[in-house]
Amino acid sequence: MKHTAMLFLCSVLIAGTASAQDDAAREALVRTDQAWSAAAAEGKDIEKVVAFWTDDAKVVPAGAPVVSGKAAIREFVSRSFATPGFHISWKTLDAEVSADGTMGYTTAESTITMPGPDGSLVTETGRGITVWRRQSDGSWKCVYDTWNHGPEPAAETH
Amino acid sequence: MKHTAMLFLCSVLIAGTASAQDDAAREALVRTDQAWSAAAAEGKDIEKVVAFWTDDAKVVPAGAPVVSGKAAIREFVSRSFATPGFHISWKTLDAEVSADGTMGYTTAESTITMPGPDGSLVTETGRGITVWRRQSDGSWKCVYDTWNHGPEPAAETH
Repeated sequence: MKHTAMLFLCSVLIAGTASAQDDAAREALVRTDQAWSAAAAEGKDIEKVVAFWTDDAKVVPAGAPVVSGKAAIREFVSRSFATPGFHISWKTLDAEVSADGTMGYTTAESTITMPGPDGSLVTETGRGITVWRRQSDGSWKCVYDTWNHGPEPAAETH
Repeated sequence: MKHTAMLFLCSVLIAGTASAQDDAAREALVRTDQAWSAAAAEGKDIEKVVAFWTDDAKVVPAGAPVVSGKAAIREFVSRSFATPGFHISWKTLDAEVSADGTMGYTTAESTITMPGPDGSLVTETGRGITVWRRQSDGSWKCVYDTWNHGPEPAAETH
């Protein structure tokens, strides 16, 4: 009986520790994603923004070709920041991690403003997902991110 | 010296085992994703297709509202299968798993045929990502899947 009670207590403690670790990993992921959005929203420091991706990351933007690897991503970010009126930010909706905290994903509602076909600025709301890999230094980096748009009209001209 | 050699051998063995486990988990994920595509391409057995999602999964289709939870997903699949001319299939491009094999993701090129606004069938190519959670029975189930389209024209009318 004593043995059973001890085993039960151990399993509760282990489950509690695992759950606390999950929560901590999830919170770290949300903080990282929000720091990334803040850096991107500033629209100035290309290297600061690019540092959130791994070297072999892929970006799959709605309506545009896949962007593969750090050099292409740097070019993509640089071109976006140089576009007059460009602005991006996102709100993290959910964060989940693997049991060992080596992989995770976040979902987000993104807002992107860009010049439309006629040159006037268009703001579009997107639904994004980012897949993250925990690095050996403990930081989370994005390996894959993509977004799409809901039913029309998703765009607002202004 | 003997001790160092033994430690080195152990680390090689552990790394080899981990790598073999990763490969096995990745292969299981690709097989699951392809079995799912085959069941979806048949377009008949709703329950067989729906069984690949967890109860709390989310589908975020390009151009349509988010579909949350098994009941809404069943309705979504059922409506798609009932649409005259509807067809879907996808080719798995890449599969990655967390170190402990509890979470993974696959990317895919999808092909969806549906009636367009004027009723004629339109085939669109999409870029998809699926996030998976390993279940207690060892199977992989989808917790989140989404796709978008590349630059226009992505659609082919026929």
